[in-house]
Amino acid sequence: MSTKPTIAVVGGTGALGTGLALRWALAGHPVIVGSRTLENAQKSCEAILAKLRQKTQSPLDLKPMVNDQAAKAADIVAVTVPFAQQAELLRSIQSHVIGKILIDTTVPLMLPKVGTVQLPPEGSAAQIAREVLGESVRVVSAFHNVAADSLASLDDMDCDVLVFSDDKQARDEVVGLVEVMGARGFAGGGLSNSAAAEALTSVLITVNRQYKCHAGIRLTGIGD
Amino acid sequence: MSTKPTIAVVGGTGALGTGLALRWALAGHPVIVGSRTLENAQKSCEAILAKLRQKTQSPLDLKPMVNDQAAKAADIVAVTVPFAQQAELLRSIQSHVIGKILIDTTVPLMLPKVGTVQLPPEGSAAQIAREVLGESVRVVSAFHNVAADSLASLDDMDCDVLVFSDDKQARDEVVGLVEVMGARGFAGGGLSNSAAAEALTSVLITVNRQYKCHAGIRLTGIGD
Repeated sequence: MSTKPTIAVVGGTGALGTGLALRWALAGHPVIVGSRTLENAQKSCEAILAKLRQKTQSPLDLKPMVNDQAAKAADIVAVTVPFAQQAELLRSIQSHVIGKILIDTTVPLMLPKVGTVQLPPEGSAAQIAREVLGESVRVVSAFHNVAADSLASLDDMDCDVLVFSDDKQARDEVVGLVEVMGARGFAGGGLSNSAAAEALTSVLITVNRQYKCHAGIRLTGIGD
Repeated sequence: MSTKPTIAVVGGTGALGTGLALRWALAGHPVIVGSRTLENAQKSCEAILAKLRQKTQSPLDLKPMVNDQAAKAADIVAVTVPFAQQAELLRSIQSHVIGKILIDTTVPLMLPKVGTVQLPPEGSAAQIAREVLGESVRVVSAFHNVAADSLASLDDMDCDVLVFSDDKQARDEVVGLVEVMGARGFAGGGLSNSAAAEALTSVLITVNRQYKCHAGIRLTGIGD
């Protein structure tokens, strides 16, 4: 029995969602992988468990659900869906996340030019999440610049995570959820500042194309 | 006699301009420090030379001029003025920079909330520069996330520099002008991508306030 909060990763079968579920399960959190179908969620859980068994024999608490049930059953909900699905997905789980921390990871990439910064009129995907969900949900924005492949591996994470929220306590809690992965999290200001991290993802995609790499960022000059 | 291009730093008496002038002069470029008055430019040159003499006895080519004369006399022009002065300054030197590389370093910080991302309606300060200067100037945007104090010191630079331009050849030249400072420069895409680096400055200001530091960024995962 864990006393750690249960985290649902909604839309959790993609690369980023899989990586988050894996890292939080490894850190001892009960994790729910949400998907549109239970079958897909189940497959994703099995793949994550198989990978985690290479690393640990400790008990792991990882279960599949459909997205809205996942959101309902969890204490904290992370959303990892493409930008085009963000608003609809958030509306579909809104009633299940009142009073909860919702971690939005959406980057407003618009096909075909995903290497070009194209911020939405609202300013950022984080501000769209706030508009859709309203004041009663504790929206936090994070994980925009994490190379999903690196997150989904069992290697050390060679990047920092910028965390944004208008709710300072929620922001600090999510910084803690970054640290349990073995990475550094930094509170970067309110949700409007999320525009910086979201835009940076297109820059990193541009760099990745040139250098054939999976670039991330680290802050320097912090004193360690 | 240097065969390296002459660089003017227009508005070059602030912390960022001073740092750029110092680093390029140390790398052997003829450097012109521009200011609104010759007296201020002269004072800035003297301060930079005094600092550089702690490091090197090599010949240094650093001279003061008023801004428009500096822009006229140089091969490459870097502009380091506050956002509120950017458009006016660029208009005042436009006729002197036709066909030249113009490095715009402007960050759209708006008082009093400099720690809050407030991108302009044009998308970025870089896009404002392009609109003001027109197609005949080779606009490159860079140096947004460099801690000016670190740049103006004689210590190694613990940060990377993102470089944006719609002119790939100009972008590569400016990446070279970053490398002569001993830092890494990365081509981050077109001028519209400058929004990411400009917005990130407000995030770094927010981090600096919390950690009492001068934060910068480094890219990770590039393979070195």
